[in-house]
Amino acid sequence: MGKKRRVVLPAVSLKDQPEEELVRRLAAAGWPRRNRAVGLRLGLGDDAALWAARPGYETLLTCDWFLEGTHFLKAKHPPDSVGWKCLARAVSDVAAMGGEPRCFLVGLALPMSATGDWLDGFVAGLRRAQTRLGCVLAGGDTTESERVLINVAVIGEAQRGQTLQRHGAKPGDLIYVSGRLGEAELGWRRLRNRKEISGRDPLLHKHLYPEPRLKLGAWLANRGLASAMMDLSDGLSTDLTRLCAASRVGARVDSRRLPVVNDAQLSREDGMHLALHGGDDYELLFTAAPPNRKRIPARLGRLQLTEIGVVTRDRRVLLARPLGGELGRDSKRTREEPLMARGWDPFRRG
Amino acid sequence: MGKKRRVVLPAVSLKDQPEEELVRRLAAAGWPRRNRAVGLRLGLGDDAALWAARPGYETLLTCDWFLEGTHFLKAKHPPDSVGWKCLARAVSDVAAMGGEPRCFLVGLALPMSATGDWLDGFVAGLRRAQTRLGCVLAGGDTTESERVLINVAVIGEAQRGQTLQRHGAKPGDLIYVSGRLGEAELGWRRLRNRKEISGRDPLLHKHLYPEPRLKLGAWLANRGLASAMMDLSDGLSTDLTRLCAASRVGARVDSRRLPVVNDAQLSREDGMHLALHGGDDYELLFTAAPPNRKRIPARLGRLQLTEIGVVTRDRRVLLARPLGGELGRDSKRTREEPLMARGWDPFRRG
Repeated sequence: MGKKRRVVLPAVSLKDQPEEELVRRLAAAGWPRRNRAVGLRLGLGDDAALWAARPGYETLLTCDWFLEGTHFLKAKHPPDSVGWKCLARAVSDVAAMGGEPRCFLVGLALPMSATGDWLDGFVAGLRRAQTRLGCVLAGGDTTESERVLINVAVIGEAQRGQTLQRHGAKPGDLIYVSGRLGEAELGWRRLRNRKEISGRDPLLHKHLYPEPRLKLGAWLANRGLASAMMDLSDGLSTDLTRLCAASRVGARVDSRRLPVVNDAQLSREDGMHLALHGGDDYELLFTAAPPNRKRIPARLGRLQLTEIGVVTRDRRVLLARPLGGELGRDSKRTREEPLMARGWDPFRRG
Repeated sequence: MGKKRRVVLPAVSLKDQPEEELVRRLAAAGWPRRNRAVGLRLGLGDDAALWAARPGYETLLTCDWFLEGTHFLKAKHPPDSVGWKCLARAVSDVAAMGGEPRCFLVGLALPMSATGDWLDGFVAGLRRAQTRLGCVLAGGDTTESERVLINVAVIGEAQRGQTLQRHGAKPGDLIYVSGRLGEAELGWRRLRNRKEISGRDPLLHKHLYPEPRLKLGAWLANRGLASAMMDLSDGLSTDLTRLCAASRVGARVDSRRLPVVNDAQLSREDGMHLALHGGDDYELLFTAAPPNRKRIPARLGRLQLTEIGVVTRDRRVLLARPLGGELGRDSKRTREEPLMARGWDPFRRG
């Protein structure tokens, strides 16, 4: 299904039943009414969708906001990135439990000005994500709004009793992250400061088209290798604090181990800041008992896995830094400082 | 569970992790982490909720917007009505398929000014609806916004193969509605024009605290009495047009049979207009084959059921009115006019 097909959605006419028209145009974009592979029995167009759970599995439910002005800017984010990302970030919550996505509902509130080309691009991105992530549109609700409001609810599944949750980390467990941290935030900085956008920039790509770590999540869950897991959506400092709170433990992160962004123009200190507090990476954060260390490879496919610290009994979340500054990498002596949750929070400013 | 318990949610402090704090306060309001009766295995607080589908049932999925300025006004609608109604209207879609609600996800975007008393009232209404409708909070997402934005996704269930859908109406089938139509719209008119609000006014109550027709929906579905069904959210003219389009049929509605609002101050013509085009009633609209007529009572419990017309092969939706005007009720001669979809549509103005 890698073929690029441009979905053309003309601007919605206002004459007769505009909301119907919008739903019909969405439906005409080729969303399936049924999809056996994911259990969808009745999709768009009725009061509710019908879906069949798989025997032996349990159902995962999650929803995520994606709001113009808060999570994306219409002037900066291409509409197909908005379509991709609104689904990808909700699916990331399913990856974080070790599950597989099945289908989704989308609440879409649009200004009239976004019902033409913008909607066309949005739908193209959403369709691409649907195919790539194996998560099929089951239904939704449309209405008008002054700015674009999106809420995506994802229904996923995991084999019964095999999900990984935020609680479960034990003192002594090792802490791991996938990928490199802070890349998406750096991509966002670049996008903000640029007039011309190149889709080739991998950091920009990570910000615009994040890939939920579904394979890694399911791999860890099915093998029982991790004790706790969550996705990194708001930055390591905030999300690790959440995982520790849920597990009633603390953590000590070794700054020298952090997989920071590879970028020549970036100081080590700046890279560290991005890795600790940058949001939107959608990498996985997980803990594993020490005997599992040898079963966790340095890479799963092309995805890097890095041990960054250890779970502690003491409930504080600490960052251990080399005494001689970040460049004193050979120094074995470190000082520990509290790692404050400084990731993204919509209710905090500045 | 009819006890009134006031849930006190102090204004969220901004100091440390405001979003966490908001989620914690929501969680502290007594939402269950588990609920065996509805299959909830893991509620609020992780990346996703865990829910177990019932064997022999299929899952119903639906979501609904409830936006300040579009669906409610902060100055007019008490916060506990907003909490009740945002869940009730989404659950109504489950009733419309003949299913039972199980759990829901809520996306909640709030201005800081609504995190104190307003949130307190909202949560009280939402909790009351949760208990009354048997639909349990499973998870959600919170963020900040200039106005209150709510999106509710409901997960329901129905015995496999027993759901009622919008398609399925056959020419010759009889058309029924529950309750009286236009009451909620009239309630809204009153609310708009009043300074003092009395909770005792039944029309106001219907507008503020609609009751999804779960019993009727399940009763019809389990007995196989209806051929098609949907809920009346946007007005009969709009919703009947939708049902006819899905079933590829038309309809002839008899104006004299419409269960209009009982109100001395309202002209018959005005009452008719409200019954045809008024939104927000959340009554059920269904069709039944003529042999089932004798099995459909005039009332189910206290809920009135009214036969209002007939399904036609010709795809037009028509309103038959007595020749001598609405008061010529004894006249057997009628004229037919097209019934245009003039119900609520967020994309149409005026």
